[in-house]
Amino acid sequence: MKLLLLNGPNLNLLGTREPDIYGRETLDDIIQAVVNQFSDHCVIEHFQSNSEGALVDRIHQAKLDGCAGIVINPAAYTHTSVALRDAISSVDLPTVEVHLSNIHSREEFRQHSFIAPVAVGQISGFGSLGYGLAVQALLNHLQRA
Amino acid sequence: MKLLLLNGPNLNLLGTREPDIYGRETLDDIIQAVVNQFSDHCVIEHFQSNSEGALVDRIHQAKLDGCAGIVINPAAYTHTSVALRDAISSVDLPTVEVHLSNIHSREEFRQHSFIAPVAVGQISGFGSLGYGLAVQALLNHLQRA
Amino acid sequence: MKLLLLNGPNLNLLGTREPDIYGRETLDDIIQAVVNQFSDHCVIEHFQSNSEGALVDRIHQAKLDGCAGIVINPAAYTHTSVALRDAISSVDLPTVEVHLSNIHSREEFRQHSFIAPVAVGQISGFGSLGYGLAVQALLNHLQRA
Amino acid sequence: MKLLLLNGPNLNLLGTREPDIYGRETLDDIIQAVVNQFSDHCVIEHFQSNSEGALVDRIHQAKLDGCAGIVINPAAYTHTSVALRDAISSVDLPTVEVHLSNIHSREEFRQHSFIAPVAVGQISGFGSLGYGLAVQALLNHLQRA
Amino acid sequence: MKLLLLNGPNLNLLGTREPDIYGRETLDDIIQAVVNQFSDHCVIEHFQSNSEGALVDRIHQAKLDGCAGIVINPAAYTHTSVALRDAISSVDLPTVEVHLSNIHSREEFRQHSFIAPVAVGQISGFGSLGYGLAVQALLNHLQRA
Amino acid sequence: MKLLLLNGPNLNLLGTREPDIYGRETLDDIIQAVVNQFSDHCVIEHFQSNSEGALVDRIHQAKLDGCAGIVINPAAYTHTSVALRDAISSVDLPTVEVHLSNIHSREEFRQHSFIAPVAVGQISGFGSLGYGLAVQALLNHLQRA
Amino acid sequence: MKLLLLNGPNLNLLGTREPDIYGRETLDDIIQAVVNQFSDHCVIEHFQSNSEGALVDRIHQAKLDGCAGIVINPAAYTHTSVALRDAISSVDLPTVEVHLSNIHSREEFRQHSFIAPVAVGQISGFGSLGYGLAVQALLNHLQRA
Amino acid sequence: MKLLLLNGPNLNLLGTREPDIYGRETLDDIIQAVVNQFSDHCVIEHFQSNSEGALVDRIHQAKLDGCAGIVINPAAYTHTSVALRDAISSVDLPTVEVHLSNIHSREEFRQHSFIAPVAVGQISGFGSLGYGLAVQALLNHLQRA
Amino acid sequence: MKLLLLNGPNLNLLGTREPDIYGRETLDDIIQAVVNQFSDHCVIEHFQSNSEGALVDRIHQAKLDGCAGIVINPAAYTHTSVALRDAISSVDLPTVEVHLSNIHSREEFRQHSFIAPVAVGQISGFGSLGYGLAVQALLNHLQRA
Amino acid sequence: MKLLLLNGPNLNLLGTREPDIYGRETLDDIIQAVVNQFSDHCVIEHFQSNSEGALVDRIHQAKLDGCAGIVINPAAYTHTSVALRDAISSVDLPTVEVHLSNIHSREEFRQHSFIAPVAVGQISGFGSLGYGLAVQALLNHLQRA
Amino acid sequence: MKLLLLNGPNLNLLGTREPDIYGRETLDDIIQAVVNQFSDHCVIEHFQSNSEGALVDRIHQAKLDGCAGIVINPAAYTHTSVALRDAISSVDLPTVEVHLSNIHSREEFRQHSFIAPVAVGQISGFGSLGYGLAVQALLNHLQRA
Amino acid sequence: MKLLLLNGPNLNLLGTREPDIYGRETLDDIIQAVVNQFSDHCVIEHFQSNSEGALVDRIHQAKLDGCAGIVINPAAYTHTSVALRDAISSVDLPTVEVHLSNIHSREEFRQHSFIAPVAVGQISGFGSLGYGLAVQALLNHLQRA
Repeated sequence: MKLLLLNGPNLNLLGTREPDIYGRETLDDIIQAVVNQFSDHCVIEHFQSNSEGALVDRIHQAKLDGCAGIVINPAAYTHTSVALRDAISSVDLPTVEVHLSNIHSREEFRQHSFIAPVAVGQISGFGSLGYGLAVQALLNHLQRA
Repeated sequence: MKLLLLNGPNLNLLGTREPDIYGRETLDDIIQAVVNQFSDHCVIEHFQSNSEGALVDRIHQAKLDGCAGIVINPAAYTHTSVALRDAISSVDLPTVEVHLSNIHSREEFRQHSFIAPVAVGQISGFGSLGYGLAVQALLNHLQRA
Repeated sequence: MKLLLLNGPNLNLLGTREPDIYGRETLDDIIQAVVNQFSDHCVIEHFQSNSEGALVDRIHQAKLDGCAGIVINPAAYTHTSVALRDAISSVDLPTVEVHLSNIHSREEFRQHSFIAPVAVGQISGFGSLGYGLAVQALLNHLQRA
Repeated sequence: MKLLLLNGPNLNLLGTREPDIYGRETLDDIIQAVVNQFSDHCVIEHFQSNSEGALVDRIHQAKLDGCAGIVINPAAYTHTSVALRDAISSVDLPTVEVHLSNIHSREEFRQHSFIAPVAVGQISGFGSLGYGLAVQALLNHLQRA
Repeated sequence: MKLLLLNGPNLNLLGTREPDIYGRETLDDIIQAVVNQFSDHCVIEHFQSNSEGALVDRIHQAKLDGCAGIVINPAAYTHTSVALRDAISSVDLPTVEVHLSNIHSREEFRQHSFIAPVAVGQISGFGSLGYGLAVQALLNHLQRA
Repeated sequence: MKLLLLNGPNLNLLGTREPDIYGRETLDDIIQAVVNQFSDHCVIEHFQSNSEGALVDRIHQAKLDGCAGIVINPAAYTHTSVALRDAISSVDLPTVEVHLSNIHSREEFRQHSFIAPVAVGQISGFGSLGYGLAVQALLNHLQRA
Repeated sequence: MKLLLLNGPNLNLLGTREPDIYGRETLDDIIQAVVNQFSDHCVIEHFQSNSEGALVDRIHQAKLDGCAGIVINPAAYTHTSVALRDAISSVDLPTVEVHLSNIHSREEFRQHSFIAPVAVGQISGFGSLGYGLAVQALLNHLQRA
Repeated sequence: MKLLLLNGPNLNLLGTREPDIYGRETLDDIIQAVVNQFSDHCVIEHFQSNSEGALVDRIHQAKLDGCAGIVINPAAYTHTSVALRDAISSVDLPTVEVHLSNIHSREEFRQHSFIAPVAVGQISGFGSLGYGLAVQALLNHLQRA
Repeated sequence: MKLLLLNGPNLNLLGTREPDIYGRETLDDIIQAVVNQFSDHCVIEHFQSNSEGALVDRIHQAKLDGCAGIVINPAAYTHTSVALRDAISSVDLPTVEVHLSNIHSREEFRQHSFIAPVAVGQISGFGSLGYGLAVQALLNHLQRA
Repeated sequence: MKLLLLNGPNLNLLGTREPDIYGRETLDDIIQAVVNQFSDHCVIEHFQSNSEGALVDRIHQAKLDGCAGIVINPAAYTHTSVALRDAISSVDLPTVEVHLSNIHSREEFRQHSFIAPVAVGQISGFGSLGYGLAVQALLNHLQRA
Repeated sequence: MKLLLLNGPNLNLLGTREPDIYGRETLDDIIQAVVNQFSDHCVIEHFQSNSEGALVDRIHQAKLDGCAGIVINPAAYTHTSVALRDAISSVDLPTVEVHLSNIHSREEFRQHSFIAPVAVGQISGFGSLGYGLAVQALLNHLQRA
Repeated sequence: MKLLLLNGPNLNLLGTREPDIYGRETLDDIIQAVVNQFSDHCVIEHFQSNSEGALVDRIHQAKLDGCAGIVINPAAYTHTSVALRDAISSVDLPTVEVHLSNIHSREEFRQHSFIAPVAVGQISGFGSLGYGLAVQALLNHLQRA
C-alpha cells in the first residue's frame, strides 16, 4: 500500500525555523523517522513544495499512482487555499490533516482550515510526532473502510 | 480575432471529478466543442493550470499575443486570488467569468468572486454549455465596443 | 414549448433610465428581439410588474399555463424578496436569473441574490443581450433534463 | 367574536408545493378544518394574498370590521416585511404568528422574524395543525385579557 | 410647479396609530395643512399606498405628469425597499425624504434607509411639521438648481 | 402513553419571580393543570432542575422509561446548552420546546435557541397555557407519525 | 427667546473647503442670513470651535444663559463624540442636528451619529439652507412643547 | 504513571446514539480497548459525566491523585464551557483534546473549542480510535517534557 | 444582617492556581479575612461550587434564608451562564459582582458578563481585596436603599 | 502621598444632570467627602475638564508632581479616547477607573472601555460612593506594590 | 519652502515613555535632527499638542502661513479623529502620515487610520528615523506635483 | 552588504498598467534607479515573480545567500498570502514592506496586509520613490540593530 505524505510551504526550513515552536529536527529527519516507523505496513512517498499549484499537481498524481491515501500538512495554505481543498475532493482519496503546532491556540486567522471539512480528521499540536499519529490514523481508517 | 480561454485549478480533472456536479465530459471534450462552435468567428486558444502564477503569466502573454478578450473559469482562485484580478485589470482585456456550477447556491465562501468586479459579466450554473454562452457574450461585447 | 420571461420593478423604464448603465433600448425593443430570435424554438410570454405580489401571482400562473421554464430579471427584488424565491421553489419550474448590469461590481447590497440559490444559473453584465443568452441557457437546460 | 386568519405569499399553493415539507392538504382543506373546529367559539374570516400591500390593507380592515384578534402565517414576508409589523402595531389587535415548518431549523435568513416582536406569541413546526393551536392560543389570550 | 407628496404603508392610519409617537392629526389634516401652506408656490399632489409596487408606479407617473420633485415618507419601506430607491433614481426627480419620528433613535433596523443615498436630503423627528419643512427644502433646492 | 415534561433553571420559582412577565401561578399549579387536562390521553411525568447535567440525565432516563416524547421549557439553557441539544438528538424522542414569554421580543441573546433545530416545533409567548398547547402539539405529532 | 447655534470642527473654513460639496458661502454669511431670517422670532447666538471640550463647555453655558434650545452642526464630532451627546442630555435643552451634506450618502462611518438619539430631529443634505430649516423646526418644537 | 480519561455529556449513550456518525461501540467497549492497548505503559482512569461541575471536580481530583496528564472528549462542553478550560489551566496538567467526529466539518458552532487553546493538541475525526491516538500523543508529550 | 458570598468554578483552587494572576492566598484565607473585616456589620455566609446548578440553587436558598444581598464572583460562569443571571433577577436581591483579575484586559470572551446587567455594580482587578470592597459597596447600597 | 482624582466631561454638572441615574450631590460635595474620608492617608488633588487634551495634560503633570497614582472617571471619554489610554500608559502610574453608573447595563457603546486594559481595575455602579472605594482600592494596591 | 511637522498626543513624553517601543530620544532631539537634516531644502515648523482641537487649528494656520505640506504623527488621534481627517481635506495640503512603531502589528484598534485615506502616503515602524523619511517623501511629492 | 528587492505579481507590467495610479516608469527603470542610488552602500539583488511559491523560494534563498535584509512589494499577495508571511518569519531577515499606491485609501480588502505584522515597517503611497525610501529605512534599521 502506498501513501502520500505532503508538506506545504516553508516546511523545508524545519529545524531552522522558529525552533521554539517547531523543534530542531529537519524535515528529512522527520520523514525518515515516519518512513521507518511504518515500513512494514506501507510505502510512504514524500513531497514538499512552496507552490500551491505544485501541491495540487502532486495530489492529482497521487490518484494516478494508485496511492491509497494522503497525509498533508498544508502549512500556510491551510488557511488560504481553496485549490488544495478542491484537489482533495477531486481525487477522492482519504486525507488526514496534520499540524506541528496547535493551530487553535495561535492567531485567529490560523484557526480556520479550508482543508479540514474535506479531510477524514485533523491532528494538531504534537510536533513532528504528529506525522506518525497521522499515518497511523490513516491506516486505521483505510482498514475500516 | 483571437480569444483566450483560461481554466483554473483542478479543471484538468473534469469528467472524473464529482461528475454529479460537473458532468462527465473531459476538459478536452469541452474545449474542442467550443472551438468548433465558434470556428467561423474566432480562434480560441486554451490554457489550463493549477498554478495561480502560471495563470497570471498567461494573461500577460495574451496581451502580447494580441488576444481580443478572455473567457476565464478561475475555479478555486475565484474566491482567493487578488493576483488574477489585478492581472485582468492590468492587461485591460475584456473578460467574461464562467462557472460550471451555480456558485451562488454552494458554500458561502464560494459566493464571493474577486474576479467579477473586473469582468464584463459572469455566467454560472450551466455546466459545460456555459463556455459557449461565455464566448458568445464576449463576441457580442467586442462587437458593440 | 412555452417560456415565461419575467421583468421586475422599474424595468418598464428601460431606455429612459440611467442609459449609461442600462443602454437606450426600450423594454419592448428588447423583448421583441428575444421573441424573434427564438421564434423557431419556443413561444415566449412576457410580463413586467413593479409589484412583488403580481410577480409571484404570474409565476404561479406559469405553472398552470404549462410553461416549461422561466427567465427572470428580478431587478430590485433580487436583493429583498423571499416571496419570489419561494414562488420559484413552489412551482418547481427551471428558472434562469438574468441581470443587465454586472451586479457583482455594484453596491454591496446588490451582490446578494435571494433568487440565485433556487435558479439553474445566473447571467449578469451583458446588457440586453443577456436575455438571449438566458433563453439559450434555459433551452439547453430543458433539452438536457 | 370574529377573528382574522391571514395567510401570506405562496400559501395558496399548499398541497402542491414541496409536500415533503408542507404536507398534502390544500389551504382550503386547512381553513375549513380550523373554521369547523372553532365554530362554537368564534367566526373566523380568512384571507390569503401574495401581495404585502394587500395583507397590510386587510389588517387595517380587520380593525374596522371589529375583529378581536389575528392569526397570521406571514410566510416569506415574516423575514422581510416591516410594513406588516407596523400594520399589526398600528391596529393594536392581539396577533398570533404561526408557521407550518420549524423556521428555527431552516436557512439562517428564515430564523429572524420581523413579526414576532409585535405578536403575542409564535407557534412553529406543527404543520397545518399549528393553525388550530394558534386559534386556541389567541382565544385563551383574549379570555385572559 | 407641481410636486408629488408620497406616503408609504400604514400612514393612512395616522391620528389613530400610536398617537404618543405620531400625534393625533389624521393624514388628511396634515396634507391639507401642507397644501394650504404652499398654495402660493406650488401644486401638491398626494398619494398614499400600502403597496410597494403602487408607490413605484406613482413615482413613474410623476415623471410623466411633469412633477418637478418628490417629498416622500416611505415609512416601513424606508428600510426594506430597493425598488423604491431604484424608482427614484430612474425618474431622476429631486426627492426629499421625511420621517415623522426620529428614526435614528428607534430600533436599529429603522436607522438604515435605502432611500437616503438617492435623496437630496432627509428630515426626521419633527412630526407632521416635517412635511412643511420638506416641501420648503425641496422648493429651495429647485430654485438653486 | 407516557410523556416527560421538563422544566429548566429558575422555573421552580414561578409564581414568585417577576410575575408581571411570568404570571402568579406556581409551577405546581401549572403542572397539575396540565396533568389533569390530558389525564385521559397520557401520563405526564414532570421534572425540574437548575442543573444542566441533571436535565441531560433525565432525558436519557426518559428513553429507558419508554416515554413517547418530551415537552421541554429549557429556560436559560435554551440559549447556552449544546449538551441539552445533543441529549435530545441522542435519545431521538420527539420534543416540543415551550417558553412562557415571547423570547423573540426580549434581549437579543434570548432570541437564539440551541434546542429549536432538534425540536419538532416551538411555542412561545402564551404563559402557562403554552404547556397545554405543547402537550397537544406533541400528541398530534405522535398520532401522525 | 434665545437660541444657540453651534458649529463644530472645520466649519470655520466654509466657503473655502471643498466648495463642490459645501458651497461657497462663508460661515459668517450663513450665520448672518439665519440671524436675519429669524430676527423677529428669536435671538440667535453663534459659536464655532474645533475643540470638542470647548463645544461641551458652550453647551453647558447655554443652560446657564437661559437658552431655550440648540441647533448644532457637530461636523466630524457627529461620528466620534460621546461627550457632546452627554452634554446635550445633561443640559436637557431641545436640540436639532443639522448637516450641510447628506451624511447618509457618504462614507459609512459618516452615516452613524452619536448625537441623533438625543436630538429632537435631524436635517441633512440641504446645504446652508439647512440652518434655516433647523431653526424653524426648533421654534415649531418649542411652540408645541 | 496514571492518566485520566474524561468523557463529557451524552457520551454514555455511545453505541446507541446516531451510530452513522459515532459508530456502534459502547463507551465501555472503547474504554476497555484503550486500557488494554496501553496497559504496559500507564494506568488509565476513566470518568464520564453529563454535568459540567462534576467534570471540573474530577479534573481537580486528578491533580490531587497524582495523574500525569488528561485525555478529554469534552463533547458538547467543548463549545460552551469556560469552566472546563479554566479547570485545565488551574491544575496545569498536560491535556489532549479528542473528538470522535471531525468537528471542523459540522455546524459552525461546533468548530470553536474553548478547550483547544489550553490543550497540548487536538485530535478529531477518527472515531473511537482517536482515543488510542490521544493517549499515544499524551505519552509522547510526557516523555519529551 | 446576613449576606451571601458566592464563589464560582475553580476558585476553590485559589492560592494554587496561576498565582501570578490570582495571588497565593487560599480561598479560606480570603473568606476568613472578609468575615473578620465586617463582623461588626453583618454575618457573611460563604458557598463555593463548580456546578452552575448548585450556584443557582444557593441563590434561591439565600432568598428563603433572609439574606439581604449577595456578593458573587461568578468566575467562568460570568461569561456563559444565563441561568445565574436569571437566578439573580428572580430572587431580586441586590448583588455585587467581583472579579480578582481585571477581566477587561484579558481574552475578549472574558470581557462580556451576563451577570453585570442585573448587578448593582462590578468591581474587578483588585485581587482578594476586591471582596472587601464588594461587601463595603453592598452595605453602602443597602443603607441607601 | 499624593493622589490625583480626575473627572471627565460633563461631570461638572453632577447633581443637576439626570439625577435619577447620577444622584443629587454636586461634584464639589463628592470630592470634599472623599478628601475628608482619606485625609489621614493621602492628599487628593482634583481636576475636572471637558477637554480630552486638558485631561491628558493633567495626567502628564501628575507624573511631574510626584503623584503616586490616579483615580479617574473618564465619563464619555471612556469609550472614545485612545489618547487618555496612552497618557496613562506613558506616565506609568497605577490607575483605578471608576464609573458612577453600571456601564455594563447601559447602551452597548458604553460597555467598552479604552481605559480598562491599562488600569489596575475598574469599579462601576455604586454612585458617588464609588470614588471612596476607588481611592481605597488604589491605596491597597500601592501598599502591596 | 515651509513645511509643518505636527505631533499628536503624548508624543511630548518621547524618551520617557515605554522606551522599549519608542526609543530614548526626546521629541526635541528628534525634531532638531530632522530640521538639521533638511535645513538646505526647507524650513520645518514644529507643533505638538495633546488637544485634538489645537491640532486642527494648527493645520488651518498652516494653510494661512503658506506651508507647502504637512508631516503628521497623529498618535492616538490616528484611530479616533475624523476632525483631523477633515482638517487635512479642508486645507488641501499634501500630507504624509508617520508612526514611530509599526501600527499594523499592534492592537487591532491601532490598525485603522482615519488619516491615511486623505494622506499622500504612510510610513510606519522606523522609529524616529521615520520623520526624516517622511519629510523626504513629502519633498519628493512636492517636486513631482 | 547584500539586500534583496522582491516584487510580486503583475509588477512586471509597471509602466504599462493603469499608469494613472502606478506611473509610467517600467520596473527595470525603477530597479536601476534604486540600485544606482545605493551603489555605495549595498548590493541590491532583484527578483520579480507572479508566483507565490517562487517568491517564497527566493526568500529562502536570500537567507542562504547571506542577504542582510529584504525590501518587498508583495502586490496582490499582500492581502492573501500567509505563505509569504511565514517565509519572512522563517528566514528571520529584517524586511521592509513597500507599496506604490496608498493601500489604505483603496478597496477595503487592500487595507489588510498579512505581511505587515512580520515586517520592520511599511511605506505606502509614494510611487516608485517608495523603493528608495524603503532601502534607506532598511539600511537605517540594519545600522541600529
